Amino acid sequence: MTGRLAVVGLGPGGPEHLTAAAAAALAEAEDLVGYAPYLARVPERSGQARHASDNREERARAETALALAAAGRRVAVVSSGDPGVFAMAAAVFEALEAGPPAWRGLDIRVLPGVTAMLAAAAAAGAPLGHDFCAINLSDNLKPWALIERRLRAAAEGDFVIALYNPRSRARPDGLARAFDLLRGLCGPDRPVLLARAVTTPEETLRIVRLGAAQAEMADMRTLVIVGSARSRVLDLAAGPRLYTPRSSP
Amino acid sequence: MTGRLAVVGLGPGGPEHLTAAAAAALAEAEDLVGYAPYLARVPERSGQARHASDNREERARAETALALAAAGRRVAVVSSGDPGVFAMAAAVFEALEAGPPAWRGLDIRVLPGVTAMLAAAAAAGAPLGHDFCAINLSDNLKPWALIERRLRAAAEGDFVIALYNPRSRARPDGLARAFDLLRGLCGPDRPVLLARAVTTPEETLRIVRLGAAQAEMADMRTLVIVGSARSRVLDLAAGPRLYTPRSSP
Repeated sequence: MTGRLAVVGLGPGGPEHLTAAAAAALAEAEDLVGYAPYLARVPERSGQARHASDNREERARAETALALAAAGRRVAVVSSGDPGVFAMAAAVFEALEAGPPAWRGLDIRVLPGVTAMLAAAAAAGAPLGHDFCAINLSDNLKPWALIERRLRAAAEGDFVIALYNPRSRARPDGLARAFDLLRGLCGPDRPVLLARAVTTPEETLRIVRLGAAQAEMADMRTLVIVGSARSRVLDLAAGPRLYTPRSSP
Repeated sequence: MTGRLAVVGLGPGGPEHLTAAAAAALAEAEDLVGYAPYLARVPERSGQARHASDNREERARAETALALAAAGRRVAVVSSGDPGVFAMAAAVFEALEAGPPAWRGLDIRVLPGVTAMLAAAAAAGAPLGHDFCAINLSDNLKPWALIERRLRAAAEGDFVIALYNPRSRARPDGLARAFDLLRGLCGPDRPVLLARAVTTPEETLRIVRLGAAQAEMADMRTLVIVGSARSRVLDLAAGPRLYTPRSSP
């Protein structure tokens, strides 16, 4: 088969954080496939077909992309951030495993990007400077009990904790439960970063203590980072910064 | 003060994975500061001063960069991958906190990059498609007991586990101990990715089961990813791929 599929990370928002490899794959594609708001971030090129779909349709979107590639097209599936982190790359491999055997002969490449936690961390300082974990707070595809088990394990390991998809209209309560659980395990003093729409004109950063953290401070465009026992807030002229030293006693 | 400091992520190796923002910051800098092999990845520009230093001198390197910025220079500190992940950004904030109060008025920006685990994951498929953690296996700056506590917590939470700095000449034994510990906790069947020099001409990828994983398969240029209970190996025409489905029962 001559078609090929690139799963492309668009980075966190600002076009200046796209990699050159991702930009090249977008320019070469004959077909662009993705969630409509992400496709809208890709500059229009004449002759390129666009296949926009709704949120939560990742599996169908992956099948569309694979079928186009199998028909000989050069296809790019776009993801915000990095496609491998809670995004389209896993959906493509799920569809591939369940699909026609011929799909396993396709040329499939994943092009990494700057995922939201890296961009949020950079904007706020260096909170991921020591061991950390990333947990998707959405319980669309996993039971809440597993999320709770992971939050407990993350606290037990004293990891810095990045929370993806902390809150949506369909899931208004998970973040409040997560904050309550972590307050009980870690106490009220941990610094918490709420980074919204990072690297876009709407970017806002807020650093509070876990005791004062409220779910209403986040929405679906927010990335939350809860510090470890070693994380520190430093007041600079430009505002507060959050960082985690490299060493632990 | 008019000087400024950018802490710049060079990405995993291949220049095509640099972001546009990082490239611009490198081009604008009057002074480049970094570990010599990373500085060597930045194209030479006339008029730019280069300040190369050895490994393990992160704190002194950060102080050099801050002092240059305080003297009014436009400075870029370079890190491989993302500067916020086990790299220079935390060292800069440590130096800032301990340094002269005037440094807190400097214009300091961290420019994110594609960190090694994202590049390794992309090359191998989508192993980070579900909740994961990142642990630096170097015990230069933390006791081994803390590393072991975090490995145990990561296994308890059934996280995918990315291991940075798995092995060096000065620390030949940590990875073997980590594999032994994880085999005891997770059994022999977990897939393990050993990704070396990803995105460079020397790139090699190897996927084995935890029962067969040996420390000798890694060196200081290797990133190791140990799958969760859900991670799967898929055989494609181009070779085996490792991915973690988005859902958990």
